[in-house]
Amino acid sequence: MPLIDYADASPEVRAVYDDIKATRGVPDVNNFWKALAVHPPTLARTWASLRQVMAPGALDPLTKEMIYLAASAAAGCAYCIASHTAAAKARGMTEAMHGELLAVLGMAAETNRLAETLGVPVDEAFR
Amino acid sequence: MPLIDYADASPEVRAVYDDIKATRGVPDVNNFWKALAVHPPTLARTWASLRQVMAPGALDPLTKEMIYLAASAAAGCAYCIASHTAAAKARGMTEAMHGELLAVLGMAAETNRLAETLGVPVDEAFR
Amino acid sequence: MPLIDYADASPEVRAVYDDIKATRGVPDVNNFWKALAVHPPTLARTWASLRQVMAPGALDPLTKEMIYLAASAAAGCAYCIASHTAAAKARGMTEAMHGELLAVLGMAAETNRLAETLGVPVDEAFR
Amino acid sequence: MPLIDYADASPEVRAVYDDIKATRGVPDVNNFWKALAVHPPTLARTWASLRQVMAPGALDPLTKEMIYLAASAAAGCAYCIASHTAAAKARGMTEAMHGELLAVLGMAAETNRLAETLGVPVDEAFR
Amino acid sequence: MPLIDYADASPEVRAVYDDIKATRGVPDVNNFWKALAVHPPTLARTWASLRQVMAPGALDPLTKEMIYLAASAAAGCAYCIASHTAAAKARGMTEAMHGELLAVLGMAAETNRLAETLGVPVDEAFR
Amino acid sequence: MPLIDYADASPEVRAVYDDIKATRGVPDVNNFWKALAVHPPTLARTWASLRQVMAPGALDPLTKEMIYLAASAAAGCAYCIASHTAAAKARGMTEAMHGELLAVLGMAAETNRLAETLGVPVDEAFR
Repeated sequence: MPLIDYADASPEVRAVYDDIKATRGVPDVNNFWKALAVHPPTLARTWASLRQVMAPGALDPLTKEMIYLAASAAAGCAYCIASHTAAAKARGMTEAMHGELLAVLGMAAETNRLAETLGVPVDEAFR
Repeated sequence: MPLIDYADASPEVRAVYDDIKATRGVPDVNNFWKALAVHPPTLARTWASLRQVMAPGALDPLTKEMIYLAASAAAGCAYCIASHTAAAKARGMTEAMHGELLAVLGMAAETNRLAETLGVPVDEAFR
Repeated sequence: MPLIDYADASPEVRAVYDDIKATRGVPDVNNFWKALAVHPPTLARTWASLRQVMAPGALDPLTKEMIYLAASAAAGCAYCIASHTAAAKARGMTEAMHGELLAVLGMAAETNRLAETLGVPVDEAFR
Repeated sequence: MPLIDYADASPEVRAVYDDIKATRGVPDVNNFWKALAVHPPTLARTWASLRQVMAPGALDPLTKEMIYLAASAAAGCAYCIASHTAAAKARGMTEAMHGELLAVLGMAAETNRLAETLGVPVDEAFR
Repeated sequence: MPLIDYADASPEVRAVYDDIKATRGVPDVNNFWKALAVHPPTLARTWASLRQVMAPGALDPLTKEMIYLAASAAAGCAYCIASHTAAAKARGMTEAMHGELLAVLGMAAETNRLAETLGVPVDEAFR
Repeated sequence: MPLIDYADASPEVRAVYDDIKATRGVPDVNNFWKALAVHPPTLARTWASLRQVMAPGALDPLTKEMIYLAASAAAGCAYCIASHTAAAKARGMTEAMHGELLAVLGMAAETNRLAETLGVPVDEAFR
């Protein structure tokens, strides 16, 4: 798949790139967006959704990034693990926090597997 | 798979159940542990690991539970989603926080899939 | 999806059912085959492949069933976990073996997740 | 993620490395451990668990390694596939056994997918 | 999780329900939307995205539904398999087409697993 | 894993390679087959199955390839995404069709995750 740089992008794609750069305060968009530009409507829709979802709300930006990282790790997406680890660090994730997040991810994987293999019925108290 | 109640458990299993109940301040263990008791060494080891990993540290208990929930949701474990949603609520996850967590999980799933399908190379800045 | 019983099956489907029953020495086929009969060519091909793959060879039938069970558990297929647990027990898997298999599955899930999240490069010695 | 070599490791990490090397009779630990050393408590706990789980018991070490490999393959962990293929070969997995393991993994993937897509209900006989 | 019926929904949620019903020509929305209404912004955003993505374009609606079904089956989402099987049938998927789709899904699962386990390098011709 | 070229292949493997080349009208087989040749019975069986499943039927070859691609993308198999993207393009998938397929895959991932996390019960109308 090609990566579409700003210089080679259509006005429609440049408008999305400009908004990403302004919202994030970065000089260039990362490769995910340059790859997604192969389908401009998906680029525009995905960015609009992400901007809305990741805005501060009841959860702070760092917590959102760590949740994003946890989900990406469980899904095994190497690119997403790399990009959301970087984003979480930029929002304040320390080495100690990162280490504990790793530990939780490992335990979740183990207990998820055990619960599914054992076919554990959901407790009434959890319904 | 059978669920092993306290009354039917061996002393080895009861000791783990007792520690779970004391640590969590609950009157009975949930079904996951009653199913895992089919293999007492795995029961004992898993509980010892979980107790260590979920103890307060650089991350607070609510954040750890939401990370656990995110990983369980991405792995598709229905039992684990139910139990960790209950645990996160017990530690203070409000409806608004739960809604935003859902939104992040949905976006992560979408962008994880797109990044993998597009084969996006990791940016130098993320290494 | 309907389950197609022998009495309602076409001659093409009955021929497959007859071969499953004869090969396994069972009075009826299990639900997987009754569901797969919705597409007779897939029923016939899948059974022919399975019969070949699960025949004794360099690996004995019990080991093959435990490998099948491990793969099904890691894929989270509840039906397959149930059917291959039953098949493994029928071929001699004891409670102690089952417990150790569970323990291996749990550790594999945990270390798989950690290795992927850490992005560990493959050692030269493993290539 | 950095890989932490013995020379650069803390005494706490060196103690784990020393135990891995002694238990396995190898001159150095593999990359998984060098990456996991980023969080010493997770390194120590994971190794302690793995040493216990993979010790000989009701299942012999080769069978345990093949189960580990099957689970890792179903989870799609490239590093784990490489390391556990090497470990299984070191414990006696022949080319013929490896070929049959591959065949079982392929059939499991296919029948897992079919059973889930068809929504097959679990047979009474398997409960 | 509760299912929120039209009668109990807020005006914000009713507006989305009304648009789903009008767009699809159905008397009520299906359970997915009633569950998603727990977080109105995610309900509104997800429906707006889905309406855009599933509109006729270079791919016809039946092909889009079969692709959706294939992806849902590979992800193991039972609800999504049920709903998109129904939607595909409503758009003209015959029993024969459904049977062939199942066959493709099964083969994809098998060859995906084999390619990943073997670590096959991508051919130059595919880049 | 080694890739076995035609020149180094046994007569049994060459026969499969010859059939692949003749059926597809290509001068050489792609890497998947060269890797699978490590176990000739699996090579022969997988090719025989694939040739049958991908033959024209109620679904045309392009639709089958796009379904294969969707399933491979949802399973996260990088090799399979590359090979089936190439195959779909060779059968007529345009850039616009590819873009819409990507959009459907992204939405499916998001709604699959949301439906599973919410534990949505299947509507009576879908049964």
